Amino acid sequence: MIIYKQINVSYQILQKDKNTKARAGILNTDHGDIETPIFMPVGTVGTVKAIHQKELKEDVNAQIILGNTYHLFLRPGLEILEKAGGLHKFNGWDRPILTDSGGYQVYSLADSRKMTDNGVVFQSHIDGSKHEFTPERVIDIERTIGADIIMAFDECTPFPCDYEYAKKSMGITHKWLERCINRVDTTEGKYGYSQKLFPIVQGSVYKDLRQQSAEFIAKQNREGNAIGGLSVGEPTEQMYEMTELVCGILPEDKPRYLMGVGTPANILECISLGVDMFDCVMPTRNARNGMLFTQNGIMNMRNEKWKDDLSPIDEDGASFVDRHYSKAYLRHLFAAKEILGAMIATQHNLAFYLWLVKEARTKIIEGTFSEWKNIMVKKVTSRL
Amino acid sequence: MIIYKQINVSYQILQKDKNTKARAGILNTDHGDIETPIFMPVGTVGTVKAIHQKELKEDVNAQIILGNTYHLFLRPGLEILEKAGGLHKFNGWDRPILTDSGGYQVYSLADSRKMTDNGVVFQSHIDGSKHEFTPERVIDIERTIGADIIMAFDECTPFPCDYEYAKKSMGITHKWLERCINRVDTTEGKYGYSQKLFPIVQGSVYKDLRQQSAEFIAKQNREGNAIGGLSVGEPTEQMYEMTELVCGILPEDKPRYLMGVGTPANILECISLGVDMFDCVMPTRNARNGMLFTQNGIMNMRNEKWKDDLSPIDEDGASFVDRHYSKAYLRHLFAAKEILGAMIATQHNLAFYLWLVKEARTKIIEGTFSEWKNIMVKKVTSRL
Repeated sequence: MIIYKQINVSYQILQKDKNTKARAGILNTDHGDIETPIFMPVGTVGTVKAIHQKELKEDVNAQIILGNTYHLFLRPGLEILEKAGGLHKFNGWDRPILTDSGGYQVYSLADSRKMTDNGVVFQSHIDGSKHEFTPERVIDIERTIGADIIMAFDECTPFPCDYEYAKKSMGITHKWLERCINRVDTTEGKYGYSQKLFPIVQGSVYKDLRQQSAEFIAKQNREGNAIGGLSVGEPTEQMYEMTELVCGILPEDKPRYLMGVGTPANILECISLGVDMFDCVMPTRNARNGMLFTQNGIMNMRNEKWKDDLSPIDEDGASFVDRHYSKAYLRHLFAAKEILGAMIATQHNLAFYLWLVKEARTKIIEGTFSEWKNIMVKKVTSRL
Repeated sequence: MIIYKQINVSYQILQKDKNTKARAGILNTDHGDIETPIFMPVGTVGTVKAIHQKELKEDVNAQIILGNTYHLFLRPGLEILEKAGGLHKFNGWDRPILTDSGGYQVYSLADSRKMTDNGVVFQSHIDGSKHEFTPERVIDIERTIGADIIMAFDECTPFPCDYEYAKKSMGITHKWLERCINRVDTTEGKYGYSQKLFPIVQGSVYKDLRQQSAEFIAKQNREGNAIGGLSVGEPTEQMYEMTELVCGILPEDKPRYLMGVGTPANILECISLGVDMFDCVMPTRNARNGMLFTQNGIMNMRNEKWKDDLSPIDEDGASFVDRHYSKAYLRHLFAAKEILGAMIATQHNLAFYLWLVKEARTKIIEGTFSEWKNIMVKKVTSRL
């Protein structure tokens, strides 16, 4: 890796797949390198739910995690984060972090926020207090949180979304982006390391809007670019269509991050469309409900069928939990509502997701990605 | 340790304290040696709540854990436990295990059980089904669970408890003990290793009953003996008084187990009275409510006072969590109701309990136990 650090670029493509748009790359940050394609576990309020940072690092092999700006702003709050020296110091995670911008909460908390000319006023789900998020304020907050990659403030549109709304919203997102860029370029990181701003393509499921937005984002020439507003309920085929269209416009020499996606199959398909980075609550949230993703398919651990299956959770699994615990034991833990059930399932799912993207990367480098991808998509979507 | 294994006894006292009745010893089981005094984390349904078996072993240094016969009987049930080859195989804990007998549930589930001449009929808290526990049935169940140390079936009396009831109940416990012994001595362990039966002294807070019961239990000459029916709401002084009385009667060359006790101070005081083994849900249950036990006192991590205290949870703590995470971070996790809060607090508390008994052991061996104990009792009971 040192070779890439010597030639001072922050993203380097190591290999392009011949049959698809998939790429294997490396993204440098001041908290370490990220090998792409990569999946980023979601740590909403500074913790990836139900797993120690130590396990995340040593067992799951997570290279970068997410934090949510809106949630971290409310709790623990900026004062403590700044006093700690940023989120890395606060939560003891010394590898890269990415923060979203609150733009997703404009969508997910639609009932408790109001758009204004200047930004968004959120009403806290915790104590009802009101907080205005403007593009400048969001960048200031992200500076205080101190993630290595910070997202521009946008509006994530819902699905369905009528054309006029999507167009208007895209315009707002673009204006906000300019304000974010201005703020980022006139301020510095607070803790002595750099932060990369990623703009976000919007435009709902409308091709012309997506194209406009991708062109607008591309010409900002930032260190990476994101695709937002997908995985919000639209048909999977539309998600792929928009992703393909946008990836065709976003610069090839910058990492592409598809926000909030998705299932193992979604990830593999979107890698083949040229996406490098992914995040999703699915492996952690579904884990807490007893759903396991494996390379051979999906298992619902609440199911009676595992009751006396004493074989390991996943013989070929990537985590120590996969061979240490049996299916019957894990099923028992879910039946008895034991916390350890959520812990084991979370660790398994994240280790699987990280294994999956690492394996994809290996196959891209070896030149066998597309055949492998086609087989894997079938396997990971089957029900066990 | 090899020297003690060569002389084929299952319990060996290495050192007696000069100023108190404290002892340092070693108890051999087929799943490994237990250094006494010891604290045994409680794993009700086959999991010590909110911690991986791996952490329990490698970080907490637990030497033996408990399982609850009644709860394990209901879930996962005997069929699966037997198919697995016992609880060790089922939950992946390869060190010693002790099972209680259901006697505590005769007390704690008083509203959903009925005493009969022959035993106790429990009504399941899960599905309302009825299950008769007789002394013979309990031993059979404990054979199937396969713990290294199995407790005799008793009635744990409540507090307060009138003299006549306590006397009658003690008589029943003694009769049940004879039936348990008969069953144990006419059967064998199911999985190729031996199981030690520990009888239980009862008698509530009545000296004459405790004396009678201790004498009855002592003369059974089993490999270890337990004191039950304490820590059920009686004043602490009475608990100590009964413990002292009973320890004075139980054979000195056998390990003594005080069931369900207690706070760090309780444990230190009872070690000085001659107790070798302890279990209690306090370190795990209180952890989930944000209470931390440390060698410098008790901390309530929900308290606002820790909000911006970025110092390590416990600079001198025994677990990796103590230095990896700050007080402010842990407080944040509890404020945000994050599972990781319970995980960290559990790991800290158990590591502290295990550290405490190990330190007591070291002091006994060094001959400085009583001075150390007096200082520690004050420290561990203070509020931080």
